[in-house]
Amino acid sequence: MIKIPIGISGRHVHVTKDTLIQLFGPDYELTFFKSLSQPGQFAANEKVKLISPSGKELDNVRILGPVRKFNQVEISNSDAIRGGFTAPVRSSGDVRGSGRCTIVGPAGAVRLPDGVIIADRHIHITPALALLYEVKDGDRVKLRVAGAKGATLNNVLIRVSEQYALEAHLDTDDGAALMLVTGVEGFLSKR
Amino acid sequence: MIKIPIGISGRHVHVTKDTLIQLFGPDYELTFFKSLSQPGQFAANEKVKLISPSGKELDNVRILGPVRKFNQVEISNSDAIRGGFTAPVRSSGDVRGSGRCTIVGPAGAVRLPDGVIIADRHIHITPALALLYEVKDGDRVKLRVAGAKGATLNNVLIRVSEQYALEAHLDTDDGAALMLVTGVEGFLSKR
Repeated sequence: MIKIPIGISGRHVHVTKDTLIQLFGPDYELTFFKSLSQPGQFAANEKVKLISPSGKELDNVRILGPVRKFNQVEISNSDAIRGGFTAPVRSSGDVRGSGRCTIVGPAGAVRLPDGVIIADRHIHITPALALLYEVKDGDRVKLRVAGAKGATLNNVLIRVSEQYALEAHLDTDDGAALMLVTGVEGFLSKR
Repeated sequence: MIKIPIGISGRHVHVTKDTLIQLFGPDYELTFFKSLSQPGQFAANEKVKLISPSGKELDNVRILGPVRKFNQVEISNSDAIRGGFTAPVRSSGDVRGSGRCTIVGPAGAVRLPDGVIIADRHIHITPALALLYEVKDGDRVKLRVAGAKGATLNNVLIRVSEQYALEAHLDTDDGAALMLVTGVEGFLSKR
């Protein structure tokens, strides 16, 4: 039984340095709000508004730092339905042909031709633990979660890096359905 | 592989004849809005407001007919969190010691000392099909759902009656997390 701590990711945005400047103004830099479980990653104070192709809005969506090489908007299926977004289930970085949106900040707006996704379920793991648990980067495993509304979740992507802390990331829809609370653990299952 | 059609149940209320009259007035009867998949059951035109112990409100919650022998309010975990309700996961009818709320209608309000639940996942099935599938009333089975965010759901209650049409009932949180759409099917699994 391989125990994995679970973290629930709410909707958030990753932006490039260029996008940040268009949204917040020249020479702008993200300011630190709180650290996240993955080393070096942080929730920024900066929030933006997302406008869907149908003109609906999701407001107060937090940017996660540091800035990245690509723009990416991660929302839940509920967000997509409520806000009129097209959002395929994708792994982080695999944004080609994903959903469109406009990001609005205090200094300007940026139209993304793609980048809106529902992030797939994934497990961050170090190379040493991956070796121990006999999984490798890109594997798809299952994650068992106990409880009155427990389940075994399919298609959980293994992501291996020295930079990672062991954690399964699920979205708020999974969290609500399985009634997950902070600090809960799941069990990795290869079959 | 035992295929089961899936239906997603939104938040709703079942009321007694007495409660209906307190909410809508003397001699009031539910009026038909649309039929549901279970024979004889219907969504009524009548809607009520729910007030949680913390004073928050869920408005426009539909009553399902016909009237029953007990009051029962079925909400999702998301509803419970958002609205400040206490709602244990329970089978329909097992409301003793469940959550409190006040139901408000156009003619009056009714305080329920209990009755607010998150309905557990369940499968309606006829005696003939139960025999064929080798399950019995009260069994707990699993339901496999395919898709990018598929899962095998635990603790799915088998409910057997001549009055039933074969259908698995999940709530809107499960529907959102698994990205279920109307008409999708799951697979019953006994292990």
